[in-house]
Amino acid sequence: MRTVETRLRVRYSETDRMGIVYHAHYISWFEIGRTEYCRAAGVPYRRLEDAGLLILVTAVECRYRRSARYDDEVRVATSLSELASRGLAFSYEVFDADGRRLADGATRHVFADSGGRPTRAPADVVDVLARFRATA
Amino acid sequence: MRTVETRLRVRYSETDRMGIVYHAHYISWFEIGRTEYCRAAGVPYRRLEDAGLLILVTAVECRYRRSARYDDEVRVATSLSELASRGLAFSYEVFDADGRRLADGATRHVFADSGGRPTRAPADVVDVLARFRATA
Amino acid sequence: MRTVETRLRVRYSETDRMGIVYHAHYISWFEIGRTEYCRAAGVPYRRLEDAGLLILVTAVECRYRRSARYDDEVRVATSLSELASRGLAFSYEVFDADGRRLADGATRHVFADSGGRPTRAPADVVDVLARFRATA
Amino acid sequence: MRTVETRLRVRYSETDRMGIVYHAHYISWFEIGRTEYCRAAGVPYRRLEDAGLLILVTAVECRYRRSARYDDEVRVATSLSELASRGLAFSYEVFDADGRRLADGATRHVFADSGGRPTRAPADVVDVLARFRATA
Repeated sequence: MRTVETRLRVRYSETDRMGIVYHAHYISWFEIGRTEYCRAAGVPYRRLEDAGLLILVTAVECRYRRSARYDDEVRVATSLSELASRGLAFSYEVFDADGRRLADGATRHVFADSGGRPTRAPADVVDVLARFRATA
Repeated sequence: MRTVETRLRVRYSETDRMGIVYHAHYISWFEIGRTEYCRAAGVPYRRLEDAGLLILVTAVECRYRRSARYDDEVRVATSLSELASRGLAFSYEVFDADGRRLADGATRHVFADSGGRPTRAPADVVDVLARFRATA
Repeated sequence: MRTVETRLRVRYSETDRMGIVYHAHYISWFEIGRTEYCRAAGVPYRRLEDAGLLILVTAVECRYRRSARYDDEVRVATSLSELASRGLAFSYEVFDADGRRLADGATRHVFADSGGRPTRAPADVVDVLARFRATA
Repeated sequence: MRTVETRLRVRYSETDRMGIVYHAHYISWFEIGRTEYCRAAGVPYRRLEDAGLLILVTAVECRYRRSARYDDEVRVATSLSELASRGLAFSYEVFDADGRRLADGATRHVFADSGGRPTRAPADVVDVLARFRATA
């Protein structure tokens, strides 16, 4: 199953008084990971959203293994773990520059129209994601 | 000139690796200060925005005097320093629980319609703000 | 089992381009919930941390049911779902002003010393939390 | 005077309910700009801080010209506008992908020791920055 990697550098604003990245920021990093996944698949999320297809978050989970610090380079590896016409799920692993896993997690989503009502994604969007996901 | 006070407690997520509040968060606190100013004046900002009147930020400035820390109680004192049909300006002072000034600053704004185009605020909105501002 | 309630008002900075609260901010709200839980129990988290006892986050999960919007008042209900000398777990429910559940979730934690190494919490801290938790 | 450029892509978490980047995030972008400036000059800020030299923010200002949106690529151009043994000042311009200026601003700083007390920066740090700054 395809994995898309995104590199980030830890911002000062992402640290907390423990000197490490505040845990909620990993959830934003997951969002960056799936943004880049969709772009790599050829369906940039902004284009979907501008066309009236929203991808709402219905659940998120994250397990923290090691800390990241200011100015560290981290790598988010994102894969599309589930895909259906009604919704999808992504899974994520975050690594430091030495390849040690800092965190892993998952998000679940439903498709919605611009009014926020659950909807089916257009078949071509699902097809493009399905093909991308299946290719190594 | 009227001042409206808002109390906040510093969130863990607002601290940085220096152990103090990350400086950009004061800019968000200013926004909370003007939200509460408008509410106290009888023109809740959300209601204005839902009615199609946006208040865009065109400039912000802040000077930092002392640090705030996790779980500190701080007080934001907000006043409406300029008011016209085209825009307005707020000024802010942030104090700790002992009344020491942590920071002060200002923001400038223009009124805009829901499409983001500069506009004049309705006369009654300006009037209400003007009366509120003049009363101690 | 005891629940501690905390009220928050949604900040403009917490909204995103969908017009709703960005999902990662619920994770920060959970942190506010447990800060207030510990304060209510008589062991303010800042005092613990200043005394060298850290409470590290090892896992977080959140399910999203309904959206919150700018200026909404929300209520975070926090309970201490697990407690041991090595760590603890909190669970959370977030409600809107009409009592509808917006989200619920949980966090898991280990105690650590000021160097970040896992440790046992002092018996008196565990005792105080245990007694508080058991009382309605 | 030397300018260092940093490219960023707007995160979903940085947008607000107006559909544009929340204004306080530009202040964090400035911080990313000066982080990259110091790295380019050969004195990575994290290394300075780990060696006990803090660079505290004493003032910030920003003027907003145009809006940025989710997934836009923006460019932060940072220059070191003042440099002395006691402190320094940076100025910033933020551009969109078409070279239009979105915002500009400045920050002022004092050097401090690890206890937060004002101090002089080591002569070699000032020298390195001065040489870098003078070279086109």
